[in-house]
Amino acid sequence: MTVTMVPAISLEDLERTRVALGVIAVRTPLVESAELSRRFGVPVWVKCEQHQPIGAFKIRGAYTAISRLAPDVRVRGIVTHSSGNHGQAVAYVAKHFGVRAVIVMPETAPAIKVEGIRRHGAEIVFTTKKERERKAQELIDREGLVMVAPYDNIDVIMGQGTCSLEIFQDLPDVGTFVVPIGGGGMIGGTCAAVAGHQASRGATRENIAVWAVEPARSPKLTAALEAGHPVPFEPVDTLADGLVPPATGALTFAYIRPVIRGAVTLTEEEIGAGVKFLFRSMGLKVEPSGATPVAALLAGKVVPEGPTACILTGGNVDPAVFTRLVT
Amino acid sequence: MTVTMVPAISLEDLERTRVALGVIAVRTPLVESAELSRRFGVPVWVKCEQHQPIGAFKIRGAYTAISRLAPDVRVRGIVTHSSGNHGQAVAYVAKHFGVRAVIVMPETAPAIKVEGIRRHGAEIVFTTKKERERKAQELIDREGLVMVAPYDNIDVIMGQGTCSLEIFQDLPDVGTFVVPIGGGGMIGGTCAAVAGHQASRGATRENIAVWAVEPARSPKLTAALEAGHPVPFEPVDTLADGLVPPATGALTFAYIRPVIRGAVTLTEEEIGAGVKFLFRSMGLKVEPSGATPVAALLAGKVVPEGPTACILTGGNVDPAVFTRLVT
Repeated sequence: MTVTMVPAISLEDLERTRVALGVIAVRTPLVESAELSRRFGVPVWVKCEQHQPIGAFKIRGAYTAISRLAPDVRVRGIVTHSSGNHGQAVAYVAKHFGVRAVIVMPETAPAIKVEGIRRHGAEIVFTTKKERERKAQELIDREGLVMVAPYDNIDVIMGQGTCSLEIFQDLPDVGTFVVPIGGGGMIGGTCAAVAGHQASRGATRENIAVWAVEPARSPKLTAALEAGHPVPFEPVDTLADGLVPPATGALTFAYIRPVIRGAVTLTEEEIGAGVKFLFRSMGLKVEPSGATPVAALLAGKVVPEGPTACILTGGNVDPAVFTRLVT
Repeated sequence: MTVTMVPAISLEDLERTRVALGVIAVRTPLVESAELSRRFGVPVWVKCEQHQPIGAFKIRGAYTAISRLAPDVRVRGIVTHSSGNHGQAVAYVAKHFGVRAVIVMPETAPAIKVEGIRRHGAEIVFTTKKERERKAQELIDREGLVMVAPYDNIDVIMGQGTCSLEIFQDLPDVGTFVVPIGGGGMIGGTCAAVAGHQASRGATRENIAVWAVEPARSPKLTAALEAGHPVPFEPVDTLADGLVPPATGALTFAYIRPVIRGAVTLTEEEIGAGVKFLFRSMGLKVEPSGATPVAALLAGKVVPEGPTACILTGGNVDPAVFTRLVT
């Protein structure tokens, strides 16, 4: 068993981070689902990160990390390897600062994602999935670019943690968080916020449950919690395409492990049912990865204890896939 | 020219009403549209009334009116004639109080609306459009039911006004309101809130623009503003099926007229474009009537002055119509 010591993140750290984010990100709405509240007998809320400028929470971490770089470092430009929402977030934030961004993407990335990143003026370097780390390193060495990793970075975790800080502010008696997990940036930030909240109350352990939700095809956190350390996984095809990085991050895992109640896995059918429910019942377009918390409730795999917050992490879904899921 | 004297509604009246509404209605989120803000150079926000329990703002007015009836009157039961969102709201609120509700509907009402009302346990009485007032009166006379009119009722106007009070609270420097108009309950409440806001500042006239949006096929307020009094209109077929009552209300008109900047009319194509934009750009399912404020901006018919609030009044749209509009 490995115990990684990580710096505590206080509510004051998160509040400072949240205020700074105001220049670029949105304080997203927390909306009650009348139908889920009725069904479970406790108020169930959804946190709408799909309303962020790039349609996903990733802007919180990307801005926090990039804004904290020394200006003479930042001006050299940013590199990252993500074809998904983190790539878009880095492109968007780099444009805000007027600096170069290079996104290393697999040649197989869907056109819609390439387009999304290009729209924000970032450069794209295509490579194979295997080669992408090496390619990014080459850009760092040769062109002096700075890597902003998608999740295993303390500033990224702190940025994502502002989402759960907002939930504590809007719903002070929150009893359950339900959060999708890919690399663990969002849920790592949530666990840091919960730990900070408990520390601020002087309680050793208040009764707040944090549940992680992941696709059954890629149960990285389930495996990591069993093994006591992150376990590498091969990429797979799943509707929840935002939740299939190579492994849980080592840093995010250190924040997650002491706080998490557990991880649950969902079938493709269950994930699709979450997307359909959010559209039919609440009129919200949410991507499959982002719909997993609500899907976990619908599947009976997470039982809400007290007021419950489901973090809908994003809304970027291929129109054809969306139409198929909701009709 | 007719001048109707109406009681002023203060911000304190609205705040008391808003607090009371907390038992049944939602404080709906105000969400910024990054795309509209960029396009117009001022922040443009949408107020999401489609997230109310019945999917529309009408619950605010229906609850306010029904909760203020004397208990021994309320217990006799409620009647109204609306096949739309007001009918659903009355059914929902009557169920909350455990009293009878009878909704008088035209025989031609779509099955989806009949179902929506029946789901909340209300009785339905079918009649012709021409006969519905007489039929409602018969129920009042014979069975002692109490009429809760859809808009021309001071408590209904005050209830709807809480929506704009929330906007003032969340966006204190709001400069422009853009609001759909049917009978005028929502925009009457908005105008009352704006007047109350101006009175509370001791200003005779602060620079806040309130714009009404209506379908070109049924330009009731445009006609009323020209004539100086409400003008009756025949029912017509339009995508904005929530905006075709027989006329602007006499009471709502008295609140609207001194405050309103103007009314604009939209073609069916323009209304449809609003629905499509809200789904494509913000991932929101909004009914055509509710999308008209955003449609008015997109059509260049309302120019935002300062921070702008578009009230999305509801989300209840036939699935087939919605799919056709957004694809």
